[in-house]
Amino acid sequence: MNVLWIFAHPEPRSLGGALRDEGLRTLRAQGANVRESDLYAMKWKAVVDADDFGSAAPSDRLIVGSTSKHAFETGELSDDIRAEHEKLDWADTVIVQFPLWWYGMPAILKGWFDRVFVKGFTYGVRRPDGKTSRYGEGALAGKRAMVLLTAGAPEATVGPRGVNGEIDDLLFPLQHGTLWYAGMSVLPPLTICGADRVSPEQYDDAVATLHGRLRTLSTRDPIPFRSQNGGDYDEHLVLRAELAPGRSGNGVHLL
Amino acid sequence: MNVLWIFAHPEPRSLGGALRDEGLRTLRAQGANVRESDLYAMKWKAVVDADDFGSAAPSDRLIVGSTSKHAFETGELSDDIRAEHEKLDWADTVIVQFPLWWYGMPAILKGWFDRVFVKGFTYGVRRPDGKTSRYGEGALAGKRAMVLLTAGAPEATVGPRGVNGEIDDLLFPLQHGTLWYAGMSVLPPLTICGADRVSPEQYDDAVATLHGRLRTLSTRDPIPFRSQNGGDYDEHLVLRAELAPGRSGNGVHLL
Repeated sequence: MNVLWIFAHPEPRSLGGALRDEGLRTLRAQGANVRESDLYAMKWKAVVDADDFGSAAPSDRLIVGSTSKHAFETGELSDDIRAEHEKLDWADTVIVQFPLWWYGMPAILKGWFDRVFVKGFTYGVRRPDGKTSRYGEGALAGKRAMVLLTAGAPEATVGPRGVNGEIDDLLFPLQHGTLWYAGMSVLPPLTICGADRVSPEQYDDAVATLHGRLRTLSTRDPIPFRSQNGGDYDEHLVLRAELAPGRSGNGVHLL
Repeated sequence: MNVLWIFAHPEPRSLGGALRDEGLRTLRAQGANVRESDLYAMKWKAVVDADDFGSAAPSDRLIVGSTSKHAFETGELSDDIRAEHEKLDWADTVIVQFPLWWYGMPAILKGWFDRVFVKGFTYGVRRPDGKTSRYGEGALAGKRAMVLLTAGAPEATVGPRGVNGEIDDLLFPLQHGTLWYAGMSVLPPLTICGADRVSPEQYDDAVATLHGRLRTLSTRDPIPFRSQNGGDYDEHLVLRAELAPGRSGNGVHLL
């Protein structure tokens, strides 16, 4: 197993940092090959701009999608982006670890996806039949991903009727709209709540849970998102009326 | 009316840039006072780190929440953050405009919230009765916010059963989890789909819609999110069983 561990916490001496260290140790002990993208340690550039695209950047109006595709195809993307592509090509499994900030990713991690998931690589690629490879198909199909999250919020508040919204809904743009969009199979997330307030016993529980999840990385069933081109969506990419009839919300996109 | 317009697009010569220009002109013609945070033009620093907190930053482990609160209270936050606080204090209305990237905000805008919405200012403040001011209460209560979005996706694909998920669900972490969390009343978003492919007629329609939305900024009903401390949530901040009985999903948090 080749695991790429993406870590987006500013403080290695945090609960998140301890879980990252524990996770890397555990995977290596299991015999996995492990590489890391520790975004803060790498001083990862978070913001998409013309500098990403080398001489492929136009001198006039910048259209990010088409410019990034051109730069990808001609090898003119900046070195830091190409290094992440090489890691993604190598990996069969990707762990995406971050503290939940404003119910989403820290900017440095959002910027990793904004800059690395360029057109021509993870989106904007057509199949021979003219359909776009997306949601279950694409360059990253066959790879697995899992989100590992630390959150200050108590568990009940990110549960089904908790005031913050349910964790699967909060993660939908990442798990469905980004990872599954690019073709990856997405394992259920592991969320450790009450960060900065965990007791030694709670920490031991979190580590035990993490061990269990890392042992089953290659066997656990992924979230059963519907594939775009499998027949469940019509020609406008709207879910067919006979599936989850009368319902809406993120849940209709699950088999 | 004092409007702060936050703009997070790398290219002023884009559909988004044209709508921003049109919006600012329209508001000024209506007699509004307008200020802008053009994040790319400002070269806004996207990433939270110890440099944000001046001498309030600890020499050992950085705990972002408590350190940011200390720096806020002692006036040691960096100049760029304090400048945004002054704008927010001044504004009664905030427009948050961005292109939808990976079903969320560009990193530079996520980093605006990560860095500006610090503990002690927009969260982590207790009321006299010990409850936390959150979701409808807080420093920004009484102010209005509206999201203005350009998206490449066709409209049906971000509709109720579209493959990308419904726009209100995709925006839930921002509209509910950030803006409403900090107390702001959130107007329904304005989403312009098919960006980079709009015809002159479609552009005229988008401008007309924008004009209508800007004329009604102070009168339109906000999204009816439930307030945290209004009695709808129990002591664990879970929605009471008799409200939206048996249901879950983001929609249960609407009145």
